Amino acid sequence: MDVSISDISTSSLPEGTEITVKGWVRTRRDSKSGVSFIHLSDGSCFNSLQIVVPDEISNYQSEVIKVTAGCSIIARGCLVQSKGSGQSVELRAREVHVVGWVKDPETYPMSSKRHSMEYLREHAHLRPRTNIIGSMTRVRNCISQAIHRFFNEQGFLWVSTPIITASDCEGAGEMFRVSTLDPNNIPLDSNGHVDFKEDFFGKETFLTVSGQLNTETYACALSKVYTFGPTFRAENSNTSRHLAEFWMVEPEIAFADLEQSAQLAESLLKYICKAVLIERQDDMSFFVKHIDSNAISRLERLINMDFITVDYAEAVDILIDSGKKFEFPVYWGVDLSSEHERYLTEIHFNSPVIVINYPKEIKAFYMKVNDDGKTVAAMDVLAPGIGEIIGGSQREHRIDVLDERIVEAGMNPKDYGWYRELRTYGTVPHSGFGLGLERMVAYVTGISNVRDVIPFPRTPKNASF
Amino acid sequence: MDVSISDISTSSLPEGTEITVKGWVRTRRDSKSGVSFIHLSDGSCFNSLQIVVPDEISNYQSEVIKVTAGCSIIARGCLVQSKGSGQSVELRAREVHVVGWVKDPETYPMSSKRHSMEYLREHAHLRPRTNIIGSMTRVRNCISQAIHRFFNEQGFLWVSTPIITASDCEGAGEMFRVSTLDPNNIPLDSNGHVDFKEDFFGKETFLTVSGQLNTETYACALSKVYTFGPTFRAENSNTSRHLAEFWMVEPEIAFADLEQSAQLAESLLKYICKAVLIERQDDMSFFVKHIDSNAISRLERLINMDFITVDYAEAVDILIDSGKKFEFPVYWGVDLSSEHERYLTEIHFNSPVIVINYPKEIKAFYMKVNDDGKTVAAMDVLAPGIGEIIGGSQREHRIDVLDERIVEAGMNPKDYGWYRELRTYGTVPHSGFGLGLERMVAYVTGISNVRDVIPFPRTPKNASF
Repeated sequence: MDVSISDISTSSLPEGTEITVKGWVRTRRDSKSGVSFIHLSDGSCFNSLQIVVPDEISNYQSEVIKVTAGCSIIARGCLVQSKGSGQSVELRAREVHVVGWVKDPETYPMSSKRHSMEYLREHAHLRPRTNIIGSMTRVRNCISQAIHRFFNEQGFLWVSTPIITASDCEGAGEMFRVSTLDPNNIPLDSNGHVDFKEDFFGKETFLTVSGQLNTETYACALSKVYTFGPTFRAENSNTSRHLAEFWMVEPEIAFADLEQSAQLAESLLKYICKAVLIERQDDMSFFVKHIDSNAISRLERLINMDFITVDYAEAVDILIDSGKKFEFPVYWGVDLSSEHERYLTEIHFNSPVIVINYPKEIKAFYMKVNDDGKTVAAMDVLAPGIGEIIGGSQREHRIDVLDERIVEAGMNPKDYGWYRELRTYGTVPHSGFGLGLERMVAYVTGISNVRDVIPFPRTPKNASF
Repeated sequence: MDVSISDISTSSLPEGTEITVKGWVRTRRDSKSGVSFIHLSDGSCFNSLQIVVPDEISNYQSEVIKVTAGCSIIARGCLVQSKGSGQSVELRAREVHVVGWVKDPETYPMSSKRHSMEYLREHAHLRPRTNIIGSMTRVRNCISQAIHRFFNEQGFLWVSTPIITASDCEGAGEMFRVSTLDPNNIPLDSNGHVDFKEDFFGKETFLTVSGQLNTETYACALSKVYTFGPTFRAENSNTSRHLAEFWMVEPEIAFADLEQSAQLAESLLKYICKAVLIERQDDMSFFVKHIDSNAISRLERLINMDFITVDYAEAVDILIDSGKKFEFPVYWGVDLSSEHERYLTEIHFNSPVIVINYPKEIKAFYMKVNDDGKTVAAMDVLAPGIGEIIGGSQREHRIDVLDERIVEAGMNPKDYGWYRELRTYGTVPHSGFGLGLERMVAYVTGISNVRDVIPFPRTPKNASF
């Protein structure tokens, strides 16, 4: 029977079962007694399978002892109790078929020695063959599946919001232009400006920075929805926390205030962490051993702690009273920077923290103005080890206040016609948030650079593969 | 207790239970005896809930009898047996709170009369408040969740493939350019051509037409993967089957030939249809009643029939022998068009059909050349009522044959360096396919235009909302 290596451990096949496995060789070692040991990986789990190949098989001399890391093979034989440590069974091979050789094994880019993360990025097409990227991929999959399952169980509907957009969600983010105009021959209008009427969509279009405004339209009809897809920032930031293309999950709930959004965020984060601890023990053990010794304990703490909610004003007082010298000074009205956020969540509270009610000047126009007239119903969820992981808000559902905010932001209410109509046709309080998938995967695995938690990172001057 | 309308029917709450519901009014009718009947929808299921409002509640005259379609309300009261048909329970209200009025009800765009699909598209921000778009959204969500569940249960890993790409997957599709260059001031190199070195990624980049080449890299390390995300075509086709932006699921399996890919495609389609029939009975009944009387029976047939596999050469013979006069003539070497495909699946076989082994000249360079040297291991899955719904192939895993095909296609093997390395470092036979989400939703619901099965369609000259 054909099995994956994961099947072997999870279905506890009895000793003596005849099986066929397929995968890529990690290592080969030959004993003096005429037996070779091949470690085979197929990506179905962290562990590789040890295959014991006796020299009596027909292609032992001609092929088996020439097998190197990266070769693809199919092996048949029966499962036997393993004498080695770290595994319960191994495969006693009766047949080893080499499917694909490695050309020039000395220069094989994924040799079994340890490679730098930078080197692996330059070989993004082969790096899933390494332990770290294999484990990351399984954990990333586990997190994504958990996200869909969580929302589905709670009655949310996934809606796909458009990637190509003619509107700029936050009036802020730098955006990529999408066009079919020939850059060697740009059409101009009578004023000498680019004539976007000639472009594919008949107007200037961009890659979305957020699906939120669109999800609001569906939440204001179907109550609970979420979007989960790629979003884009054309920011020239070469940091370990920024990607030009990344995935974001954004739920939106009708008839919900900021507190309900905060509760949903806490439940979601806990649900994801539980799923990873249950389903990906193997990969998490690897991360603890090689990347971040706190990887598992950090998740266990997050699951078991009640998140602390603190007002922005109180958070500012805490930071001022701390007596700590921050690079950026703290005062009421400042946007908290990473060092402030990490002080709050890692030092002062030593717990996940939800900071709420920020000054309206530093937040987007669509956030609900609080009764004090100075703050908005915004929240940032901060977690020890990463800082801000979720940002959200209650949305302004009063048309008059929304219009004031649009004007204050230097925009024209006319440009937001459809968005404003949600407020004139059966408006409801509603709220939601955004969770960046890559930040979540980085948080869970302890991998420090977001370029290593997405298969093919897009960053300034890099769109390889 | 706060409940959704779906909770009421699925959890069979006992009569007399005190509940609170929140949603948008569909209709209001006042009886002469001083009682109003409000139908409330919250999107959690197809059905609306009838709320019986007696005139003794305090805001009956001032508010309740002014409520119109689209108003948002919160109603409290207790569940009672319904006397009307088509529902088992209704809400006897003790309290009705109007949260949001409809401005100028006479002109409310989603009045309860029937609107054309074109009209609804022009109001894409409000159309989820209609029965048809609400049902479509729940079915689309059901299909998407089923896709993730199917692959997850079978041990596939979801990998996100890049949206922004510097390579053109099929050497064919028309693509959107992604750029941050100022179109009013395009930088030129010393030859007077656009200097893409100055662009964000340091080279010319586009929106992806397929994640396949990227999924191959992960399949050739982790065995079973799939990508599920947006893809793009900059084709100027204004048809009911084409979108500039659509979602596609693309699985890729290592150590798998075309037959295994075909089996996977059949299992996936059946799994999706079963999920819809089980989970969305309410919405499917609506589609049967108002859109397509065969909507349910078509799915039942698909689930119960074995798909028929037929060679391209045989399919051509069948079409020629049919004596039917097609618009496009049929001969060996021609790409089958929609009329041919529908004749095969709807008339000749009256069953889902998988056509395999197409002439290599009409298929992409990466498809495996068969032993006859003339055909490639490609497949198209055709279904009655829609025609082609899945396209796939076994990939060429032999480096020498792949290189020949790249050259034949007029391309340079050097441009496919990383893709070719999958064939020199432990190559394996592998195969996969692509299923367009919108075509699947159209097939399942019977909705005839793909613009009505995605929240915010992107088509030539249209990127509204």
